[in-house]
Amino acid sequence: MNFKLPNVGTTIFSVMSALAASHKAINLSQGFPDYDCSDELKAMVNQAMVEGHNQYAPMPGLPALKIAIAQKIQSLYHQTIDPDSEITITPGGTYAIFTAIATCIGPGDEVIVFEPAYDSYIPNILVNGGIPVRIPLVYPNYNIDWDVVQSKITARTKMIIVNTPHNPTASVLQANDLQELEKLVEQFNLVVLSDEVYEHLIFDNALHQSILRYPAIFRNSFVAYSFGKVFHNTGWKMGYCVAPAHLMNEYRKVHQFLCFSVNTPMQYGLAKFLEQPNHYLELPAFFQRKRDLFLSLMKDSKFTPLHSAGSYFQLMKYDRISDEADKDFVVRLTKEAGVAAIPVSAFYQEGTDNKVIRFCFAKKDETLVSAAERLRKL
Amino acid sequence: MNFKLPNVGTTIFSVMSALAASHKAINLSQGFPDYDCSDELKAMVNQAMVEGHNQYAPMPGLPALKIAIAQKIQSLYHQTIDPDSEITITPGGTYAIFTAIATCIGPGDEVIVFEPAYDSYIPNILVNGGIPVRIPLVYPNYNIDWDVVQSKITARTKMIIVNTPHNPTASVLQANDLQELEKLVEQFNLVVLSDEVYEHLIFDNALHQSILRYPAIFRNSFVAYSFGKVFHNTGWKMGYCVAPAHLMNEYRKVHQFLCFSVNTPMQYGLAKFLEQPNHYLELPAFFQRKRDLFLSLMKDSKFTPLHSAGSYFQLMKYDRISDEADKDFVVRLTKEAGVAAIPVSAFYQEGTDNKVIRFCFAKKDETLVSAAERLRKL
Ligand SMILES: CSCCC(=O)C(=O)O
Ligand SMILES: CSCCC(=O)C(=O)O
Repeated sequence: MNFKLPNVGTTIFSVMSALAASHKAINLSQGFPDYDCSDELKAMVNQAMVEGHNQYAPMPGLPALKIAIAQKIQSLYHQTIDPDSEITITPGGTYAIFTAIATCIGPGDEVIVFEPAYDSYIPNILVNGGIPVRIPLVYPNYNIDWDVVQSKITARTKMIIVNTPHNPTASVLQANDLQELEKLVEQFNLVVLSDEVYEHLIFDNALHQSILRYPAIFRNSFVAYSFGKVFHNTGWKMGYCVAPAHLMNEYRKVHQFLCFSVNTPMQYGLAKFLEQPNHYLELPAFFQRKRDLFLSLMKDSKFTPLHSAGSYFQLMKYDRISDEADKDFVVRLTKEAGVAAIPVSAFYQEGTDNKVIRFCFAKKDETLVSAAERLRKL
Repeated sequence: MNFKLPNVGTTIFSVMSALAASHKAINLSQGFPDYDCSDELKAMVNQAMVEGHNQYAPMPGLPALKIAIAQKIQSLYHQTIDPDSEITITPGGTYAIFTAIATCIGPGDEVIVFEPAYDSYIPNILVNGGIPVRIPLVYPNYNIDWDVVQSKITARTKMIIVNTPHNPTASVLQANDLQELEKLVEQFNLVVLSDEVYEHLIFDNALHQSILRYPAIFRNSFVAYSFGKVFHNTGWKMGYCVAPAHLMNEYRKVHQFLCFSVNTPMQYGLAKFLEQPNHYLELPAFFQRKRDLFLSLMKDSKFTPLHSAGSYFQLMKYDRISDEADKDFVVRLTKEAGVAAIPVSAFYQEGTDNKVIRFCFAKKDETLVSAAERLRKL
């Protein structure tokens, strides 16, 4: 039997969360909040269950939810999206990404991926027989060198994956990046897969450079979103994909036979919750305050912060000890300091190690205080 | 761009449910109940939300739920399954099936599929580059001719998909089928994918011939289950896959990057609900009564029932009119009689038409009464 991913191990998120639990460490590794989601939203989901909305939702998603999403897109990104033909509800952002790749990528197709990369992209490409073409983001700002991108494009390049705000680096794409991307799409007819699961987590009044703002890119794009990342309920596994009808039509052919449809009462609850725009309008400030708190708490530590422009992650550089010791840095940090983080090297296929680790600051203030206290002692 | 499923249309389930809705017909097409799931179960899910279980579940599933499933398997099928390494919770049975295929099947691999076939199997094989090898079930009993199966096996045959109770035909595998299957697994080292989403819907005191009862088959098998089909909440999209550790290990590599994990509060709720075995022990009688009610109501109709041994479907044969007229039989039935059904021909790639349609009897008694009344008028 030839399995699809013979050389893949367990995802770093499971590994670090398990290690954190077994050492009773404060878990700033895997990206999820340690505070709860809105009681109002839970009540909306419960109401849908009680009212009997417990059978299959329509395959592409509940109309009310898709309409609410289209309205949000209109008001934030000034783009008219057809809820009927251009939005599909998915069981989470990761699934939305997989399905886009499965729709377009087959044996021998090349996909451009920037490293460090969210750890599902490359296995998703491999499962579909595609070839990941890895391009490093330029350290330490983790921006894209578009000349390098251009030089890597071949006749077999089918797709380019971008991610803004970026996990794990917390960098964000700028308007000029989108202009460069637009040129490539025009010139090479590339499909763009844009992972925007942290869309509302963007700081210092920056504009989220959503693909949805750029019709000339969007016409060839899939854009993946997450409710869990923005509404503090990662465990509900709810997300969606936006794409122009000609691509969405193909996407749904895969989706309808992959999971067919998505949790009905949760779709009802989210549709109702989205009617109140304050629920997403308040998110940038909410997370920026967390970032700033964590940064100020870490001021006197031995860690040097890199810039976090978006997402709920803060990268920190530590001083090189020795290659041997650094290899297990996060393991020792978990065991000895009692704080779990993710090594950014885990997001490179070849383990490129800039001595940078990722902390998730989507945590209660008190959690950040305790974690920083422990980290400052190092 | 080469998409994966250029020639695939919208699933028949969406088509017929939409047609039923637009003509206000009684919908006996898509397989879902029109009565609600247990209030107790909903309350258990709500309690989990209220208690704050809203972040990522562990990637393979909630330990309590996996343990409850292993206990159920022990008591029903007398098989010891390790909840840690042999069970993975999935967003529904269809997803469980896709993931098994994605784990094992790549370009050029042949997969044996019996027709009529649940409509996701063949597209799932195609998305992964595999080759479906279609073998008809023997009409009108829809049993397997194992000599034909043997004759279709080549060096490239990797997997065989079985389904009991069978959708759409309502036939069930017998002990001798499992013996034949065991021989093939031994001789050709085939992987078995067993779709058992209707496991508790089996009638006349028959034994559900789960693969889990046969260790010599199970050692090379994936078995897919659904909570939605048995606990009357198809819209929750909750299911699971059982496989021996060496296969489950590979399955989880795909799963962890496909959707990572599954709805947390629903896993908590289901774990609690499963503690009371009566919830599944009462299912065969519950559905058998529905089947018998529908059959007795249809006695004086022009339809001839085929045998329904399991699942929540009843096949009915109708008298041939003309090829032209029969092509749209279910469309006319929906429009003119006001009852929607699924043509069994839709489950054959080449549309083999035995003039048989499928009714779903997982409906309120009053729905079955009204539907039969309309159908008797024909
Ligand atoms: C799907 S588990 C990973 C959560 C996450 O997005 C992260 O920690 O980067
Ligand atoms: C996933 S939609 C199809 C429901 C079903 O199993 C059926 O109607 O056969």
